[in-house]
Amino acid sequence: MSQQRRIDADQMRDHFESVLGSYEQVFEKFFLAKLIGLEFEYLPLEAADADKEVSRLTFTVNEMLMNPQGTLHGGIMATVMDISMGHLLRKAIGPGITVEMNTQFLRAAPPGLARAEARFVKKGRSLSFMESRLWGADDKLAALTTATWKML
Amino acid sequence: MSQQRRIDADQMRDHFESVLGSYEQVFEKFFLAKLIGLEFEYLPLEAADADKEVSRLTFTVNEMLMNPQGTLHGGIMATVMDISMGHLLRKAIGPGITVEMNTQFLRAAPPGLARAEARFVKKGRSLSFMESRLWGADDKLAALTTATWKML
Amino acid sequence: MSQQRRIDADQMRDHFESVLGSYEQVFEKFFLAKLIGLEFEYLPLEAADADKEVSRLTFTVNEMLMNPQGTLHGGIMATVMDISMGHLLRKAIGPGITVEMNTQFLRAAPPGLARAEARFVKKGRSLSFMESRLWGADDKLAALTTATWKML
Amino acid sequence: MSQQRRIDADQMRDHFESVLGSYEQVFEKFFLAKLIGLEFEYLPLEAADADKEVSRLTFTVNEMLMNPQGTLHGGIMATVMDISMGHLLRKAIGPGITVEMNTQFLRAAPPGLARAEARFVKKGRSLSFMESRLWGADDKLAALTTATWKML
Repeated sequence: MSQQRRIDADQMRDHFESVLGSYEQVFEKFFLAKLIGLEFEYLPLEAADADKEVSRLTFTVNEMLMNPQGTLHGGIMATVMDISMGHLLRKAIGPGITVEMNTQFLRAAPPGLARAEARFVKKGRSLSFMESRLWGADDKLAALTTATWKML
Repeated sequence: MSQQRRIDADQMRDHFESVLGSYEQVFEKFFLAKLIGLEFEYLPLEAADADKEVSRLTFTVNEMLMNPQGTLHGGIMATVMDISMGHLLRKAIGPGITVEMNTQFLRAAPPGLARAEARFVKKGRSLSFMESRLWGADDKLAALTTATWKML
Repeated sequence: MSQQRRIDADQMRDHFESVLGSYEQVFEKFFLAKLIGLEFEYLPLEAADADKEVSRLTFTVNEMLMNPQGTLHGGIMATVMDISMGHLLRKAIGPGITVEMNTQFLRAAPPGLARAEARFVKKGRSLSFMESRLWGADDKLAALTTATWKML
Repeated sequence: MSQQRRIDADQMRDHFESVLGSYEQVFEKFFLAKLIGLEFEYLPLEAADADKEVSRLTFTVNEMLMNPQGTLHGGIMATVMDISMGHLLRKAIGPGITVEMNTQFLRAAPPGLARAEARFVKKGRSLSFMESRLWGADDKLAALTTATWKML
């Protein structure tokens, strides 16, 4: 068994069964969010400043989410940051879609508990600008995303 | 059962078992690539022009990869395009990591067979610039990514 | 007199006087466009495919537009590509503003005649996606931009 | 004389003569920086945290730097933010070149005194990640840029 194998097949099956038994194709509970194992939290939304509203998503980096090098896949980083922004947007204003997204990959995120935090750069009626940051289990900033969102 | 449910739990379990039985944490076969169901193809690499080398990845958009709106999740688009570039880079030059990535989300990709194609914008010794495009089952361009890669 | 000095003070003064005498704060003729020395050209706009409509801007890279290293400044590359997209947008649909813009700087553009070409990635009612490419006097691709535009 | 005309031809000539008489193709003093009228300032570089090192560039938005709509041209915003990052990089580590740059245009910057501030997102030996923000004379955030830099 390789060093990279963080969870075994039975653990994966258990996780998958729990996803199958609990997912619904709605915010916070859709299959992909459940599969990644995302936990959602929102910080005070009544804050005066747009940039004080924050969504925080936590999840565990394991083999199912890794690249061949044994760290969190950049695509999953992008996915989690995208979800963190989309959920904050919906909570604060209403549902929207990602128009474009730019991600800087600063360093690898090792196995363990990672978190992403999204906030607004500028809220708008038709378009909003947002950013999200992702930290690895080593508490180091692994990725930074800025994105443009269009209200539905 | 909602209209969005494209595959049932048993099909998902079968797919998951097949992933568990076939994945290895190496290029083309790592868990995430198998889970998405990626098929890899490379077009002539001996071409004179850098932009004639292409990787083509195909996969089926189903409920496991969707957003709550019932279309392919933007994060999965980013993931597949990231993988398409990384695999072409490795095939053509050698392994590298994504430094940054910019994605424009042009339109939704409906359920069915989608494909992504990556090519070089400019090959370099230490850095390469690449792009990837993703088409939905309706054969319409759904997303365009440009990215910077650093050789390992 | 350094090797980098491509034009002398009198030539600069002559150019500046010609800018002062001809500029108007309207499309194609605003001060900045005249100062850079942009020439505008549009290729067939009645084309069926969005990506067949092209704006082509040409200008001469001289010391006024250079970085301290003696090549075209990246900010001027961005400026010219931004202008190339904005003018095509206005010609093809109507006036708009840049929402976001991502530029890859592929190689230096030497002194001499450079050109930028913009085209649509996807036209939309409220948002359009565009790209622009800039070639140096050596006929090599120096920069690639993708951008999102919002109609006014 | 239109309302947009913030400075007259004689003021422009005076400014141009002062640029001609003072520029040198070196950092802080190259033609383009002088033409825009950039003033450079650097905040404590001995700070422990990378993100405490800041460059601050101030300049006056006038007709020479405007788009046809009468506000600061997005390309000049990009140019100033690019320069703000490049100068901080050189001051803190050494000279580098922009690999890629992503700018979000949040709102128009009116005529008057504008400023840009750059800082590091992550310093690296071969690559550094930086960001820059630009505020208009109304003290509102007008643009946000993230960029990747390669050491020379």
